[in-house]
Parts: sequence; C-alpha cells; structure tokens
Amino acid sequence: MCPDVVRIRHVKPEIRILGIDDGVFKPHTQGLADIIGVVYRGGYWLDGVMKTEVEIDGTDATEKIASMITQSIHYNQLRVVMLDGVTFAGLNVVDIKELLQRVHLPVITITKEKPLDEMIKKAIQKLPESKKRLDAITNAGKITAIHTHDDNQVAYMQVAGLSLEDAEKIVKNTSTRSSIPEALRVAHIIASGLTKSKENV
Amino acid sequence: MCPDVVRIRHVKPEIRILGIDDGVFKPHTQGLADIIGVVYRGGYWLDGVMKTEVEIDGTDATEKIASMITQSIHYNQLRVVMLDGVTFAGLNVVDIKELLQRVHLPVITITKEKPLDEMIKKAIQKLPESKKRLDAITNAGKITAIHTHDDNQVAYMQVAGLSLEDAEKIVKNTSTRSSIPEALRVAHIIASGLTKSKENV
Repeated sequence: MCPDVVRIRHVKPEIRILGIDDGVFKPHTQGLADIIGVVYRGGYWLDGVMKTEVEIDGTDATEKIASMITQSIHYNQLRVVMLDGVTFAGLNVVDIKELLQRVHLPVITITKEKPLDEMIKKAIQKLPESKKRLDAITNAGKITAIHTHDDNQVAYMQVAGLSLEDAEKIVKNTSTRSSIPEALRVAHIIASGLTKSKENV
Repeated sequence: MCPDVVRIRHVKPEIRILGIDDGVFKPHTQGLADIIGVVYRGGYWLDGVMKTEVEIDGTDATEKIASMITQSIHYNQLRVVMLDGVTFAGLNVVDIKELLQRVHLPVITITKEKPLDEMIKKAIQKLPESKKRLDAITNAGKITAIHTHDDNQVAYMQVAGLSLEDAEKIVKNTSTRSSIPEALRVAHIIASGLTKSKENV
C-alpha cells in the first residue's frame, strides 16, 4: 500500500532528490529521446546519474521513468522525484499520480514557465492514445506559483503524494543556485549537453 | 605565445574548472570511449558539460581533448583543466605539456592512487607509437602527494603551466566534498553513469 500523501516532518538539508529532464531530439520524428535523471543531496552535491529512453511523442514516459528509478542503485536513498513539467520528448506525458504509485515516492513538477495545459490538450487530441495523455494532464493537478531562490522569480509546481506546503519547502530549500532545484537545473545541463537526437530507431 | 607557468595571484572561490574523465569501455578492444568534461565554478556549481570520443588504447587523447575544450562555449571562462590521471581509455596517454600549449590553460592531474608510471611504461612498450606515449608519461612530470579535503586523505598531483603552490591551492579550494575537486568527482559519476562501451566502431 502506498499512502496518498507522504508527510515530511523535517526537510533535511541533505534530502536526496532525483531531478529528471529530457535530452535533445528532433520534434515530430519517429525515434527515441534520452531521459536523464540526476541525484542530488539537497541543493549541493551531485550523487549519481541515470538514463533511460522514451519514444518521441509516445506514451511510455511514465513506465520508462518508473523503471529507471526502481532499478537504480540510488532508489532506496531517494525521497522525492522532480520533473521538468509533465511532457517529455514532445508529447509523451508523464502521469505523476501513476508515477507516485509505481515508485512510492512523491513527485513534484517544476517549470519556469506556466504549463500551457490548454494548448497541450489541443495538440494531444490528434495523437494516438489521446485519452491516456489527457488523463495524465488532468492528474498533474493544480498549478501553484511559488517563489524559490529569489522573490522576484516565479516557478510553477504540480504535486502528487505530498502536501503543497511540504513540496514548496523542499523546492525552496533545494533551489540553491537558480529559480529551480539544483537536481533539475543540472539534469537540464547534462541532458542538453550530452545527448544526441536518435532518429528512426 | 603561451607562458610556461601561469601565475594565479588569488584563487577566486568561483574559479572555472574543467574536470575530465573517461566513460565505460571494454579494455583491449578496438573502438571508442567517451570522454566527459564537466565545468564547475569552484567546488560548488556545475555550469556545463562537454563530450568527445577517443580510441581505446589509441594516441589521440591529447588532440581530441584539446579540440573539445577549444570548441566549447565555456572555453573563454575556463581557468584550469583537471584530468583524472594521464591515461584515458586504457593507454591513450594525454601529454599535459602539449595540452597546455594547445589550449593555453594550465593542466593539473589528480588521482586518489599514486600513478603507476613504471607499470604503464612497461605496458606501453608493446603498443604502436610507444615513443609518443612514453614522452607523454615523462612530460607529466613530478608526482606530488597532497592533502585536500581531509588531512587523513592523500591525493596525487602532476602539473603543467602552474606552480605547484598555486596548483595545490586550487585543488584544495575545489575539493569541497571529497579528496578530489568537485569537477573531477562529478565528471567520474557522469562518465561512468551515462556512457556505454562502443565496440568495433
């Protein structure tokens, strides 16, 4: 059994966060895109990295990311999963409620720009398995604007398995360098810097 | 003109370091191994990543690493290059004096274990271009034992283009988490975590 909401009484400075972002890919092609996971101790120390691949505009992101996490040597240390939004490799939507159930860890999405749910929903209508994708967008839930590193900068958060208050506390504590948590900032740098698009796999 | 020894009067906490390590590869095979470069601001913030490939047991490491550095968007920001020893992808030896001349940046090698120069020299005798490899081992110069993060831990350093005193200062200041500088610790985690062996390329 997995509780719906995890209670985190005290956010330790060294709380292990997994930040996940996607690599470079050629939009609207058939093929795979790399997904990079970066393990950070709080906002300071990189502890590990992991990788998986998902189909461009596919529907396997939730399953593939869940497997990457549960098969990792870092899995037992992790306390929270953070995603750069819910769409990966184009319109491969992660269902954060399902991810929570699969990995038994709370999931927080953080983006610098407000997620454009209505625009995404419209684009999804034309794709196969559109209901599954739409459900994932709906399951991402309420979008909450928060201040993190700097009171002048806003980031947007969606949460599964954690109270908004606890999620905000974790995001603030781990956003040591920018308006997003280090695990996500660094996942983006590594994913965009080290991956190549893989077409027609 | 590139001076033989760069003088660094004051080691800024945010000095940009490039840490370089090799990825996973199958020893004694023909093929390529990934080389990962990680840009750190001092001992705290990851600023960027870069990648190249070198031949397993080849002789192209100096040239390939130099090109990776000079072609990087981070090149102008970098102040020091750090290597995990001089041998990459097996016995592909980096000539740190030549690397200094090519990139106009001081080079420091740091290893947790004392480099086994005599053993490496013996292994190199059997390989093509053995003189080039032996010269590179010789050019790595004196091995200096230093304490970095912790007085109980020793690391070994070889230096080109910098006084031993300045090199030691930079290594100590940037070894914030372990006995080696963060740029190298993280380069190792990323290189070993994200690369795959590429045989028979």
